[in-house]
Amino acid sequence: MSMNEHATRALPPWMEADGPLQDVILSSRARLARNVSGLHFPDRMTQADQAALIEQVGSAVAKMGGSWGYFPVSEVAPVDLQVLMEKHLVSPQFLQGELQRALAIRQDEAAALMVNEEDHVRIQAFSPGLDVEPALATALEVDDGLENELDWAVDSRRGYLTACPTNLGTGLRISVMAHLPGLVLSESIGHLLQALAQAGVAVRGIYGEGTSALGELFQISNQVTLGEDEQALAEGVRKVAEQVVEQERQARKRLAAEQMPRIQDRVWRAKGILENARLLSADEAIAQISALRLGVEMGLLKSPSYATLSALQVVSLPGFLDRTAAQDLSREGRLQLRASLIRERLTREDG
Amino acid sequence: MSMNEHATRALPPWMEADGPLQDVILSSRARLARNVSGLHFPDRMTQADQAALIEQVGSAVAKMGGSWGYFPVSEVAPVDLQVLMEKHLVSPQFLQGELQRALAIRQDEAAALMVNEEDHVRIQAFSPGLDVEPALATALEVDDGLENELDWAVDSRRGYLTACPTNLGTGLRISVMAHLPGLVLSESIGHLLQALAQAGVAVRGIYGEGTSALGELFQISNQVTLGEDEQALAEGVRKVAEQVVEQERQARKRLAAEQMPRIQDRVWRAKGILENARLLSADEAIAQISALRLGVEMGLLKSPSYATLSALQVVSLPGFLDRTAAQDLSREGRLQLRASLIRERLTREDG
Repeated sequence: MSMNEHATRALPPWMEADGPLQDVILSSRARLARNVSGLHFPDRMTQADQAALIEQVGSAVAKMGGSWGYFPVSEVAPVDLQVLMEKHLVSPQFLQGELQRALAIRQDEAAALMVNEEDHVRIQAFSPGLDVEPALATALEVDDGLENELDWAVDSRRGYLTACPTNLGTGLRISVMAHLPGLVLSESIGHLLQALAQAGVAVRGIYGEGTSALGELFQISNQVTLGEDEQALAEGVRKVAEQVVEQERQARKRLAAEQMPRIQDRVWRAKGILENARLLSADEAIAQISALRLGVEMGLLKSPSYATLSALQVVSLPGFLDRTAAQDLSREGRLQLRASLIRERLTREDG
Repeated sequence: MSMNEHATRALPPWMEADGPLQDVILSSRARLARNVSGLHFPDRMTQADQAALIEQVGSAVAKMGGSWGYFPVSEVAPVDLQVLMEKHLVSPQFLQGELQRALAIRQDEAAALMVNEEDHVRIQAFSPGLDVEPALATALEVDDGLENELDWAVDSRRGYLTACPTNLGTGLRISVMAHLPGLVLSESIGHLLQALAQAGVAVRGIYGEGTSALGELFQISNQVTLGEDEQALAEGVRKVAEQVVEQERQARKRLAAEQMPRIQDRVWRAKGILENARLLSADEAIAQISALRLGVEMGLLKSPSYATLSALQVVSLPGFLDRTAAQDLSREGRLQLRASLIRERLTREDG
């Protein structure tokens, strides 16, 4: 896929497939932090080293299996980078970086990597639903591929060396994106978040650290990267996520038993508004999409599909809108385009 | 029509027809106040006189042309009376009356009368759109019919005698129901209301004196009943209403030119919400129906018809809901039934 395609396609191809426990967990992600031996960490690299690393990783990617695109950031339009961030293919930090950077994306967008973010290389891999093992396997496969050409900095006692000590060891962070409207609506989310924090599990908004839980979406991941092997870490996050799924389902059952008319109203209004509104702010769109998703998750609505719901979410975001309009939009232009793209997606599916 | 039919049919048959200037004026009404000669006004009548008058008017109605139903209030269920009030066939004051009362309704509901409200007899007649002359003609026809059997109290100088001096003379009040969202949205309504008050025109909410302007609906009527003949009064109100129509249309044109995306959004959201919500309060329903009506009036929507819009309004009201449910509803039951009746009407029309 060309950068043009990555930046204009709302739905990553890997999200077209269904995944396990998708009524609560949208997707699973594995992220590996790696650094090249004998080089300073990015924050202390020379300009020449930055450029050399981009070259090196580029040729390693070229030799890997699968169909990859490799893009020096200097050649990517800022609005395209914004879209990649909105699709979680690069991190918000990567956009703000001041080093020479590059990124690689596999054709199906289920694997991607960043060069010169916090570490020399950060690999990401995704799978739909609660399915951390395949995501980990993909990430490790990319890691192996790169290792044919690159020499990772490893310490026999501490494992992979990373710029920030919190990533030391496996360099692995497993995370799942959870939709928890039942726990939010029944006001039991606070209790759960506390329990997870005590168990060493991090919970964040969907755009990572410091972002709030838009649309009742939460990113759940391991805090610890050291001292366990990758499989054990992945299993740990999966087990926590399974418990969260159970609690969310219980919360929804209680809501269904006690407040069905309110839930029905919320879900159907969301459908009515998304299918009809002519102006939609990002905040409202995300809230209404969350309610629509709840309707599908609880079996109150037969459509849209989970894939369409995920696409709606990307379509709602400012970068994607500007990219689609091929220009910077006015505030009202954005509200209009958002509403019209959402309507179009929803009617396309119905028709 | 039986009382059962009057109380369960949301749309009065006469409202099925279209009328002039219906994009602003929903309907026109003529009301005549009459009292029988030689009897005390209702507030000072004996029980025996109240009963005798009910008998007398009943037999006068029976001899009139047209198909009429005559109903002593003692035989009408309170919830049915409430529905008749919501359909404007009787006044709110009539429901609170403590005298023996009766009412008559012509089969098409375009004419009705109350016995022992503020005056002995109050005749009402309706026509769709801005069409005061036919409404007046119908009311005078009923007046003539009753006069064959009843002797009205008339003074050669002051005209018809009425319980309250504000109705003295013709006893005629002409009113039109106007939908003025353009003037409300553009905040020029205050100015108009002031100008009308100075010109001796009364403006009230749609359930008469003391009620607020729900759904951007205003009742515009003559203050003076004395000193002019009926035709002149009717013409006066019609001319004022024509000016109001002109101002409202101008306001809508300005809104269309300056704020079309907001108007579109408002109208389509109303459609989406009314077609999908599962819980609707009366206030919200009336506000959304007003926005939907604006969409039809401005040609942004092809459906529903004006008739359906008027039916939706009656369907939203508490008495009609209780009558339809054939029981007193809980608050949530009412919200649910209102939403479901509205959805049903809107889909019936679309299908």
